[in-house]
Amino acid sequence: MTWTRHHVLGLKDWTVDEYDTLLQTASSFREVLSSRTKKVPALQGVVVTNMFFEPSTRTRSSFELAAKRLSADILNFAPGNSSLTKGETILDTAKTYLAMGTNLMVIRHRQAGVPHAIAQEMDRLQTGVGVLNAGDGQHEHPSQGLLDLFTLCCLLDFDNPRFALLKGKKIAIVGDILHSRVARSNIWSLTASGADVHLVGPPTLVPEWFKEMQNESHEGKLFLHWELKPALEKADFVMTLRLQKERMTDYLLPSLREYNQQYGITHSRLELCHPDVKILHPGPVNRGVEISSELMDDPNFSLIQQQVTSGIAVRMALLFLIGTSSEKSL
Amino acid sequence: MTWTRHHVLGLKDWTVDEYDTLLQTASSFREVLSSRTKKVPALQGVVVTNMFFEPSTRTRSSFELAAKRLSADILNFAPGNSSLTKGETILDTAKTYLAMGTNLMVIRHRQAGVPHAIAQEMDRLQTGVGVLNAGDGQHEHPSQGLLDLFTLCCLLDFDNPRFALLKGKKIAIVGDILHSRVARSNIWSLTASGADVHLVGPPTLVPEWFKEMQNESHEGKLFLHWELKPALEKADFVMTLRLQKERMTDYLLPSLREYNQQYGITHSRLELCHPDVKILHPGPVNRGVEISSELMDDPNFSLIQQQVTSGIAVRMALLFLIGTSSEKSL
Amino acid sequence: MTWTRHHVLGLKDWTVDEYDTLLQTASSFREVLSSRTKKVPALQGVVVTNMFFEPSTRTRSSFELAAKRLSADILNFAPGNSSLTKGETILDTAKTYLAMGTNLMVIRHRQAGVPHAIAQEMDRLQTGVGVLNAGDGQHEHPSQGLLDLFTLCCLLDFDNPRFALLKGKKIAIVGDILHSRVARSNIWSLTASGADVHLVGPPTLVPEWFKEMQNESHEGKLFLHWELKPALEKADFVMTLRLQKERMTDYLLPSLREYNQQYGITHSRLELCHPDVKILHPGPVNRGVEISSELMDDPNFSLIQQQVTSGIAVRMALLFLIGTSSEKSL
Repeated sequence: MTWTRHHVLGLKDWTVDEYDTLLQTASSFREVLSSRTKKVPALQGVVVTNMFFEPSTRTRSSFELAAKRLSADILNFAPGNSSLTKGETILDTAKTYLAMGTNLMVIRHRQAGVPHAIAQEMDRLQTGVGVLNAGDGQHEHPSQGLLDLFTLCCLLDFDNPRFALLKGKKIAIVGDILHSRVARSNIWSLTASGADVHLVGPPTLVPEWFKEMQNESHEGKLFLHWELKPALEKADFVMTLRLQKERMTDYLLPSLREYNQQYGITHSRLELCHPDVKILHPGPVNRGVEISSELMDDPNFSLIQQQVTSGIAVRMALLFLIGTSSEKSL
Repeated sequence: MTWTRHHVLGLKDWTVDEYDTLLQTASSFREVLSSRTKKVPALQGVVVTNMFFEPSTRTRSSFELAAKRLSADILNFAPGNSSLTKGETILDTAKTYLAMGTNLMVIRHRQAGVPHAIAQEMDRLQTGVGVLNAGDGQHEHPSQGLLDLFTLCCLLDFDNPRFALLKGKKIAIVGDILHSRVARSNIWSLTASGADVHLVGPPTLVPEWFKEMQNESHEGKLFLHWELKPALEKADFVMTLRLQKERMTDYLLPSLREYNQQYGITHSRLELCHPDVKILHPGPVNRGVEISSELMDDPNFSLIQQQVTSGIAVRMALLFLIGTSSEKSL
Repeated sequence: MTWTRHHVLGLKDWTVDEYDTLLQTASSFREVLSSRTKKVPALQGVVVTNMFFEPSTRTRSSFELAAKRLSADILNFAPGNSSLTKGETILDTAKTYLAMGTNLMVIRHRQAGVPHAIAQEMDRLQTGVGVLNAGDGQHEHPSQGLLDLFTLCCLLDFDNPRFALLKGKKIAIVGDILHSRVARSNIWSLTASGADVHLVGPPTLVPEWFKEMQNESHEGKLFLHWELKPALEKADFVMTLRLQKERMTDYLLPSLREYNQQYGITHSRLELCHPDVKILHPGPVNRGVEISSELMDDPNFSLIQQQVTSGIAVRMALLFLIGTSSEKSL
């Protein structure tokens, strides 16, 4: 199939074909990364600008290395030293980087919708620039959802990772669902694949209205729980989420210790799951809160390192697919 | 002609030949930027160090991309984390980067004269290092002046931008002239080209002594106004300047709103100008203060995006001309 | 000889063969740096991650340029914007960069032992990743010790710098020995070479127990002094150390002025030394405190600029030796 999408702002409307193209492309870049030089000239001359209005060393480094492996040039926009503090609007900042020759913008912002607004403006001006959402508020974090997907599919069939492999799997997502853009992106992709997704956490962090995220045309179903047991039973995968400490000052949680006692994932709690169960976490991890330190370090269960590694291949695939599609459109 | 200048610290003493060489060189790099790979090996092995003691994402990114397009290696000196906080002098910091192998230094500092002091020291030590002033206090911002010049000349003759095209044009510069290094660099270059420059703004920000900036050997004349009308009448170009909010706390301005009412540039005010009038702004823009939001976004009038685009080609030309001249001198 | 060391954490246990291999390798890279392109493809495809938990523009830039000259890809981990502030452990941060594909980690931390802990974890996980200590607390700063060594040996025989050249030389190290990781690394390497090392400074900063740093199997001897005279007499080299201003608030020093009067190095004080005496300083320098401004700028005595220049070749050698040794081990 041919790739036509110019921006990746969220996974809500992705098609099965798009997921499969992404997985195949990432798979071929995984091979590039195991070669001697680790580099392809695919995006030579292309300028990728990282616009991280909300700082994140981990995700920015991942996009930066992905862009370097594709031979792109990278500009880093640092919010602290920026024109924003001088009163410039975000759209004007984006247009400045456009005018410098930016072809692809990777955008993170604490406010949901900022990448969309920039993408819309780029389209209105017929610039051909592609926008990649690297996390916007509590809305979506599509590259994280896709690297989770790639990690799972590679585990199920390393040489031929494809969307259909997840059909019928049970996947529990544990923790602060309410504030998690990672959870939202995963809900869209996983239910689309035909996997059943079980959300679990304290009622303050897993509100009832999350049921509305069930896409009726998706084969996979969405379930909500406030106790671990039904969510973990026979689960094939358990995704743990980062618990932000500021949630307690917001009176959403009594204490980290109490949270850990009720929802922390440990070896013994995994006995409820499928014997081959694996654990994921988008990082950074609060050891001993969301997940026990022993479990996190146990290579028999933890896919956490593989997630980070998948991130490079998946982000190369995203930059490549959008970068070459934008080019054709010009 | 052959280029002999080792440093670009200001435009005050530039010759017509130098302006034309710069315009021609920038024009040829503009072609490189429209090619497939966008890169030339001209400065391979050359180290460009960005020393931005005063932070600026926009200008630093522009120099960084220009250096990358010329295949140079770039070091970024970050003031926050620097040895300066450990008591090192600025000249010692510069000499440290010299000893690492720096060939070209791009320097921004909030104090006028810092780039000159470093250039002087580099010459005294016979280092062959070229220094580029990227903005020093209220003194000069030569690369901005040159990119404005290139933008204007390209508009008048895209294929053959040359200095003589501006002869007899009327150019208004509106706003906080007093604190603007951009205005100063533009006054030197534009009056040298034979254009007449009309400065306009409130008396606190356009003091009478600016008349002393008239270079008697320049064909273009310098005029001062405290009301918009005479400055805009039949103007070919209107340069608006950034109004810094701290000016009000210095009691130089009553309020932004009042400033906007008296000196803000709008569509209707442009009716006084030549029918083909164009607007410039060095950015970042305070929308609705210096210029109306509608005018800024109107491609029939605004050259603001072209200015940013010109910046890459002009800075490539500066780095190339100084970089190859320094080399020959060694 | 073949290089087998996977990490460079300190110089305490280095062998004569290792020092000579390092000096020869640095010498050949010094030639690369004087060539036209200044670049070799030696580490193409290799990812070098700078993890400077304690900020340092000077040392980071030196490692960054060294890595670029070897064609490696560089990631910079910035502590301010990092996951550390989100509760992630240092080992988890390191493992995240490992999972992204990092081959070499350059680590600076204000706590002694952090690079060792990371190296140990990398070995335990059989990653093949090499760790380079870029300064840990008051423990060691091996690349600084090695660039000092290379500077001295090149002075004694430019074309064939070798360890044996220092045998029998007298080297004074002046100042805040107590808090200096640079002094410690130099004590190990210089006494191993057969040079005699004379430590001198106020008793609060040169405590008696430093005598325990004498390695009995080293041919060079270690001496302690609290007055300049015996340390400087007939010295071939004088290494001055940075005096950190916070030492005074710790009641270890009466005042900078008094320190300078007793221990500051000046032209007249050098008359006690060997007529060909040379001065070193690891930088950044407090002019007029550790060393007089005139002496620092006197090319007949000062090796300070050469030290910085040596840093690039020595760090290229370190990255190359560890990078190619790690590779073979995989």
